[in-house]
Order: sequence, then structure tokens, then C-alpha cells
Amino acid sequence: MKALVLFSGGLDSTTSLALAIDKYGKDNVVALSISYGQKHIKEIEASNKIASFYGVEHIYLDLSKIFEFSDCSLLEKNHIDIPEGEYAKQLESVDTLSTYVPFRNGLFLSSAAAIALSKGCEVIYYGAHADDAALNAYPDCSKEFTDAINQAIYLGSGNKVKVVGPFVNMRKADIVKLGTDLKVPYELTWSCYEGHDKACGKCGTCLDRIKAFEANGLKDPIKYEEN
Amino acid sequence: MKALVLFSGGLDSTTSLALAIDKYGKDNVVALSISYGQKHIKEIEASNKIASFYGVEHIYLDLSKIFEFSDCSLLEKNHIDIPEGEYAKQLESVDTLSTYVPFRNGLFLSSAAAIALSKGCEVIYYGAHADDAALNAYPDCSKEFTDAINQAIYLGSGNKVKVVGPFVNMRKADIVKLGTDLKVPYELTWSCYEGHDKACGKCGTCLDRIKAFEANGLKDPIKYEEN
Repeated sequence: MKALVLFSGGLDSTTSLALAIDKYGKDNVVALSISYGQKHIKEIEASNKIASFYGVEHIYLDLSKIFEFSDCSLLEKNHIDIPEGEYAKQLESVDTLSTYVPFRNGLFLSSAAAIALSKGCEVIYYGAHADDAALNAYPDCSKEFTDAINQAIYLGSGNKVKVVGPFVNMRKADIVKLGTDLKVPYELTWSCYEGHDKACGKCGTCLDRIKAFEANGLKDPIKYEEN
Repeated sequence: MKALVLFSGGLDSTTSLALAIDKYGKDNVVALSISYGQKHIKEIEASNKIASFYGVEHIYLDLSKIFEFSDCSLLEKNHIDIPEGEYAKQLESVDTLSTYVPFRNGLFLSSAAAIALSKGCEVIYYGAHADDAALNAYPDCSKEFTDAINQAIYLGSGNKVKVVGPFVNMRKADIVKLGTDLKVPYELTWSCYEGHDKACGKCGTCLDRIKAFEANGLKDPIKYEEN
């Protein structure tokens, strides 16, 4: 049995990759990384290093054209500042986070389904977790969404491919705990929305990540601009 | 209210486009055409002519890279003969039609969802119909699949976009009847899997199309290699 892992090079999807390798063996795992027009290539660089570290097949796609009409702040073309602070604080003043990329995760999972069918993979690993789904910050990270897209992919693939979301009921701190047990090379991962030399330490995803390590009594091994 | 129509330039999706224009007005309709690496550009040429005929905004995407690992017979890169004869006959000897493009329609609908959110469209029109879903010939054309992907898109878009499949319970002959009432320019459409000057009249989709007109006492207005 083979697994395809949706793999950004961030903390969550790298742990998801480690989990799939632990279960299926590295020769039965394919990692899929997708550009969507984000401001930097730090994630893609991280995904390359981590795929090499694990020795898994690594497929890369560029789907940025699909987002050419989007005003999302993560997109390079838009030249919009990425908000600082936690998602909950941001959602006090907006209905949708400016960092929500329209239906990105659904698109990525559908792309993964097409490739999974072609590569003989029966499962797709998807690293969405409960913290991102809370307050509907990222609606395409919720358990309900994951269940629905799993159903769509299962039916639309002729009952051949399923989506597994191992973290949909977990918080980011739980993911770090699990990944630490699996010896995930977190020093190679990249989560920050900015593309500076070091992670900014201020955007929503940096703050979440730092807290997740702290909750485990650990220090995040990557370098931040401010300590 | 605006609608985005998944629009191949074929008979079904052109009728779906006509239906959306009839309901929302042409200035509130965006047509989306997607290449997946098919053997010819006849569909794309047809979609351009029809979008001009109706005067609607027309977006084009090339997603062929996603199918680079697929062995589907519709893909140019594979140089495989496209089977002749009806789907039911073909399915007596194979589990999956060689013309099933892996999770193509799910991928197209997810791309449509991303663009719909960016363009302010609240509905996506999808022209799948019961004949293509019969015998699970194309599992991503069934009512069950359409319901599931609608649920995934609705949830994953933050309850902003829905999928409408006006033909999921209709047969192709019913679509021709409806489209004839709507004065759809069927002479501009292209359905044939081959890319010759005229439609082949032998592949599964040509046979279905010819029958659908005959069932309405009509003659298909396009030219076939054999009459």
C-alpha cells in the first residue's frame, strides 16, 4: 500500500510525512509540494531538504495561475502586508483572514487525488489540525471539510483513494509531541509567512509554532529574527 | 449573484452555460475552460467561439502537468488509441474506462471554487449527467460525487460557494431538449475524443451525442466523418 503526502515543508505536513513513512516505509511514500504564488520559496527549499533527508520521491507542482484573481495577502503578486498577531485577534476585525488562500487546500487535495490515482497511492495524508480550524480561521482545515473532501475523493476516484487527516482532532502542540517522538527534523522546516532569512516570529503561524514547542517544554530549533 | 460555469466547449457544459446565462444574465457569468493535456485543442477552440457567441468572460487554465503520471488514453503524451463503441460495451472488459482522466472533474471543480471565491461567484455550474455516471463509467459524474464535492466546497470556502449540477438526474437526450429550447448553438460545440477535422462518430462520446439528438427527433448539427 502506498501513500501520497501533501507536503509544504512546514511543521504540520512534515510530521504528517514522518507518520506516513513510519507506517508505510519510505519506498511507499510520495511527497507532493505545490506552489500557489506565495511570497517566497523558503517553503519549497525546506520541502526539498526534508524530502532528501527522508529519501522519498518528491513531486513539485506550480498552481499559482489559479490564484491570479485572488487578493490574499500571502500572494507575491499582491504586495500586501501580512498581518501580525494571532488569528483570534485578527478575526475580531475581519470575516476572512487575509492569509486564507481561496480553497487552496481543497485544490491541493484534488490535485493529490489525481496524482495518487496515477501513482497507485490509496491514501492521501493531509496535515490540517484543530488550531487552524478553530474560529473557522481556515475553513479548509476543519474536520468537517476533511470528511467531505474525503467523501468526494473516494467517490470521484471510483472508491480507490481516501484522505487521512491524522491531526484533524489534534492541536499543534500535540503534533510537535508526536513529531518529536518520531524524530522529525524540525530544524529543516519552514512555517513563517514572510520570506526573510530567519522566521519573523510575529505572524500568526510563527506565534502558533513557538507556542506549540513551549507547550512541550521545548525550544523551536529554527532561528527567529527576535528571540 | 454571479455564477462560474465549468465549460469545456462540449454539448453538456455549453447547455449548462446557456442555463446560467438564462438565470443570471451574461454579465454575471464567468466561463472557465481547462486543458488537461488532451489530444487536441478542438474543445478549447470550440469554447472560445461559444464564449464569444454569448459575450461572457472566459478564463482559461492549463492543468496538464498534474496528469503527467496518468496512463489515460485521452492524453496526448500517451499515444494510446481511444476505444470505439459505447461505454457499457467497453466496461464488459475493463474495470476503469481508459478515457477516465483521474479525478479530473474533482480537480476542475476545486479550481473553479478557488476562482469563484476570487471573482465573487456564489455558484459553480457543473454539467455532469446521469448517462456518464451510469455503470460508474465516470465516477466523478455521479449525483453522489456532485453532492459530496458540493459539501466540501461549501465548507472549505467558508460557506460562500455552492456547486449546482443541473443535469445530474438527467440523461443526455433531456439536455439536448432543454438546450434546444434555450437555442444553444450546438453547431459550435465539440464533443469527440479525437481531434480530426470532423468528429469521428465512433468514440463513446460521439455515439452518445448522436443518440441524444435522435431521441429528440433532431439531427446533430455538427459534421461527422461518416454519415
